[in-house]
Amino acid sequence: MTTPSAPALRLLIQCPDRPGIVAAVSKFLFEHGANIVQADQYSTAFEGDGGAGRFFLRVEFETGHLDLDSAALASRFGSEVATPFAMEWRLSGDHRPRVALMASRTDHCLLELLWRWRRHELAIDIPLVISNHETLRADVEAFGIPFHVLPVMAGTKAKQEAAVRALLKDAAVDLIVLARYMQILSGEFIAEYPARIINIHHSFLPAFAGADPYGRAFERGVKIIGATAHYATQDLDEGPIIEQDVVRVSHRDDRDHLVRLGREVERSVLARAVQWHIEDRVFVHGNKTVVFR
Amino acid sequence: MTTPSAPALRLLIQCPDRPGIVAAVSKFLFEHGANIVQADQYSTAFEGDGGAGRFFLRVEFETGHLDLDSAALASRFGSEVATPFAMEWRLSGDHRPRVALMASRTDHCLLELLWRWRRHELAIDIPLVISNHETLRADVEAFGIPFHVLPVMAGTKAKQEAAVRALLKDAAVDLIVLARYMQILSGEFIAEYPARIINIHHSFLPAFAGADPYGRAFERGVKIIGATAHYATQDLDEGPIIEQDVVRVSHRDDRDHLVRLGREVERSVLARAVQWHIEDRVFVHGNKTVVFR
Amino acid sequence: MTTPSAPALRLLIQCPDRPGIVAAVSKFLFEHGANIVQADQYSTAFEGDGGAGRFFLRVEFETGHLDLDSAALASRFGSEVATPFAMEWRLSGDHRPRVALMASRTDHCLLELLWRWRRHELAIDIPLVISNHETLRADVEAFGIPFHVLPVMAGTKAKQEAAVRALLKDAAVDLIVLARYMQILSGEFIAEYPARIINIHHSFLPAFAGADPYGRAFERGVKIIGATAHYATQDLDEGPIIEQDVVRVSHRDDRDHLVRLGREVERSVLARAVQWHIEDRVFVHGNKTVVFR
Amino acid sequence: MTTPSAPALRLLIQCPDRPGIVAAVSKFLFEHGANIVQADQYSTAFEGDGGAGRFFLRVEFETGHLDLDSAALASRFGSEVATPFAMEWRLSGDHRPRVALMASRTDHCLLELLWRWRRHELAIDIPLVISNHETLRADVEAFGIPFHVLPVMAGTKAKQEAAVRALLKDAAVDLIVLARYMQILSGEFIAEYPARIINIHHSFLPAFAGADPYGRAFERGVKIIGATAHYATQDLDEGPIIEQDVVRVSHRDDRDHLVRLGREVERSVLARAVQWHIEDRVFVHGNKTVVFR
Repeated sequence: MTTPSAPALRLLIQCPDRPGIVAAVSKFLFEHGANIVQADQYSTAFEGDGGAGRFFLRVEFETGHLDLDSAALASRFGSEVATPFAMEWRLSGDHRPRVALMASRTDHCLLELLWRWRRHELAIDIPLVISNHETLRADVEAFGIPFHVLPVMAGTKAKQEAAVRALLKDAAVDLIVLARYMQILSGEFIAEYPARIINIHHSFLPAFAGADPYGRAFERGVKIIGATAHYATQDLDEGPIIEQDVVRVSHRDDRDHLVRLGREVERSVLARAVQWHIEDRVFVHGNKTVVFR
Repeated sequence: MTTPSAPALRLLIQCPDRPGIVAAVSKFLFEHGANIVQADQYSTAFEGDGGAGRFFLRVEFETGHLDLDSAALASRFGSEVATPFAMEWRLSGDHRPRVALMASRTDHCLLELLWRWRRHELAIDIPLVISNHETLRADVEAFGIPFHVLPVMAGTKAKQEAAVRALLKDAAVDLIVLARYMQILSGEFIAEYPARIINIHHSFLPAFAGADPYGRAFERGVKIIGATAHYATQDLDEGPIIEQDVVRVSHRDDRDHLVRLGREVERSVLARAVQWHIEDRVFVHGNKTVVFR
Repeated sequence: MTTPSAPALRLLIQCPDRPGIVAAVSKFLFEHGANIVQADQYSTAFEGDGGAGRFFLRVEFETGHLDLDSAALASRFGSEVATPFAMEWRLSGDHRPRVALMASRTDHCLLELLWRWRRHELAIDIPLVISNHETLRADVEAFGIPFHVLPVMAGTKAKQEAAVRALLKDAAVDLIVLARYMQILSGEFIAEYPARIINIHHSFLPAFAGADPYGRAFERGVKIIGATAHYATQDLDEGPIIEQDVVRVSHRDDRDHLVRLGREVERSVLARAVQWHIEDRVFVHGNKTVVFR
Repeated sequence: MTTPSAPALRLLIQCPDRPGIVAAVSKFLFEHGANIVQADQYSTAFEGDGGAGRFFLRVEFETGHLDLDSAALASRFGSEVATPFAMEWRLSGDHRPRVALMASRTDHCLLELLWRWRRHELAIDIPLVISNHETLRADVEAFGIPFHVLPVMAGTKAKQEAAVRALLKDAAVDLIVLARYMQILSGEFIAEYPARIINIHHSFLPAFAGADPYGRAFERGVKIIGATAHYATQDLDEGPIIEQDVVRVSHRDDRDHLVRLGREVERSVLARAVQWHIEDRVFVHGNKTVVFR
């Protein structure tokens, strides 16, 4: 996945599958001076479900010779192409995503994202990190990022979540990453950010959904463990899966060692999922994802 | 895992963990002229379970300079070493394992094993292959192995299983490999061959236990699929796991394609599990395995 | 990679990169009633080489509603689209590829391809298998495929190759797969089938090019071995790489065991390369490949 | 690999292979109250080289009930067991390894080690970090570790290396880790720390030894890249390999992207190699390693 040299925009489309979509989109872009540098498409019609199918398209194009600004291009595209094809669509790439990170006590997923951000591997702004513990303050502040602690006391969960949501609203975030944030979010919270909350679960879902996956993996005697990055939904650990990866283990690995081995997988899986999301490579379709890598 | 040049025997031991086991075993072997070429040990005491732990030992030794035949060596070992340490143990390697293969209609797992057997990768005898369908007769007979078809009709399941068990008894098999045999075995059958029936399940257990794992993996939208070789137990798909492996998939892979990709993983996972079993590398402990690779 | 339900054709294009290519191609296909079911594109311009770049496009489309037969469609495309854009191109999918397999004594790569062919995983015809030894006759003939033995004696190499080439010409093959054929082909032979001879090399190229890669891998003490499928070129083991894969090894694995472990990687790497080639997913660019998976 | 609860020592042995070694060692340990918690052995005799072979043994034992202190145990072992068997041996585990890290400008390998050290995954002391650039000072000092910059100017290389070696001598380090230190060490320097300098090379050796491996991997069009941790020797990139790992790439990945993907592999490969070294799991034999994992 190379980055084009000139500033690029991305057109992200899904609609009922039918002939002519690609022709219409590429004709429109060509006539307005856009140079397509990457295009990926997929249709569920070819899952043999017989149905007409749902069509997904991601087009990345250079804007050096556009005859319109992006706002004008978008409005023209909406009326001339999107509406006739009944598209759900958006134009992306003209602003840097604002991403909030949330974590509790463990540092590995959080640090992985902060490192990649500092190394310019993640083209995002991180306006704030939110935790329910003080533990990670020094780590976060070393990156020059505001660290907010909102502890959860008995009976204060609702109030705490309201405060969290207020902070996120003020920060106008586009994406929330739960980098091992060990609190369950309310359905209301999740509904406020559809397909915009990424969670890392420390098991190879659907195996070992729920609590203590490493302990249960050890009890079951599996020979491979994994991690899963998915969009948070009302149903805990049931959201659309973005990425998974695994690591081989043996009878010699006790629960603590599984935890240690799992850290490496968790952080790289989460980092890939975040990267693909902010590059608009992930489409949600029902409870599944289409990922254009 | 290299094969020693001289004929080798294997001593397979498990017992309560306590000091002196290795010293006693190696002293005994040395004094009788055995040359240890490989030794692996493991104790559950180091899973931090606090308890005394269970000790597992696999010793492979050359017999070129033994001062006793293997029968005499075994009886001396039993009285002098095994009894004092309350060992479950056996001496192995002096006869070639007899392995029965069972399959229904799909050929990939069966062919993989037959092919490895023919190229002497699997040091076993295969007295027979049993199926509930005619489909694979030509494939099997091309290897010069008797192929028995025992179909399952409505209401004949019990009778068919009795016939299967009679064939296996006559053939005096040490191991039964279910190479995609799509019939559930009775508890009685399984109890007759404890930790001596290896099954391949076409999912990454415990995910997608039961029927149509590929269809359900497709529905869930997982990004990785796998296969699991385990010992058959009364609880379907719950037996001790011997080996697992996985392969990456994407939104583009429909159910049929998952089936195709899965074949490669199924056959290699099953082949490794069988290889390790017949090399006495697999110990069962509760519902888990210790595998000395 | 799902197979569309209706008969499909593929348009395979490479040309100098410039705006409007996708628009022109998709407009043409749409206007003639083709329904695009899969499209992949890539441009070397985004390797940051500054240059204009080379553009690659693979379009798969359903033909149910075409207003022309494929020959007419091709000639119209040639004059109206391909020529103006200076495209190298071809229309594919209207005939089943004819593939010749060549092997010497080892069976694993050959059997893998024959199995997949018989299982309809490879949509090809196999008019013949050619070997320089009798060893594999029974295996091949069991699949009902003609097996030709053309031995290489001292001083007969040129004559033997001429005979091989005559057989291949008579069989009108589209692709030649060297499934562990241990004879070096002449430059003339290779030039006759540009990017149409696939070879499997039993190492992770460029490591251990040349003879006895497993022996040298063992000597070097690598911890991972691999296999490489590439198009044969004049420079031995230097041709464009189509696919590679690896397997982990340890100090316990002697040369023979590396050979055994390598077999599994060799056959799956070769099978994937052949599959992608016959599905027209592989483009050659200089000494590299673009693979649209 | 679990850590025993009680303080443990390790006996590390290599000697000519012959019968009785394990018996003698385990008898000695048992008689002095040592409880063996892990033992691994290997003999090159079983590489089919016919020769007598070299024997390697790693024994980890609990010391709770030792009848001697470790010094006395060692001297007794030396005279009673090691000398008769002509063993090269040492007793390890009674002091915490002192490890110096060296890096130039890139942070990923260095941060990985510092971070694992801080979360107590690496049971080492890090008395200092040495660099030839200021770049990483803040990162290192944030961990509370002294950071020494010794720049290399034209013609000052020898003087700089002398200063580096003086620092290392003062710090009495047991191991030096070159975590992307981009200066070639003199043969004299390397000879001072035999099998005690670990280097990470950013390719899958022996492929792409030398400079710019990612650029050359991109030019060759490989489909997989890797990293290699090895002991530094006089011959650049030719030292005994401790660990390697790989990651899949595609035609879409330009050189910069290979560098990015490679970072993840480099840091995990180096971290594993360091972990195994400080746990005394790595034996050097000729130009190869025996790694007891």
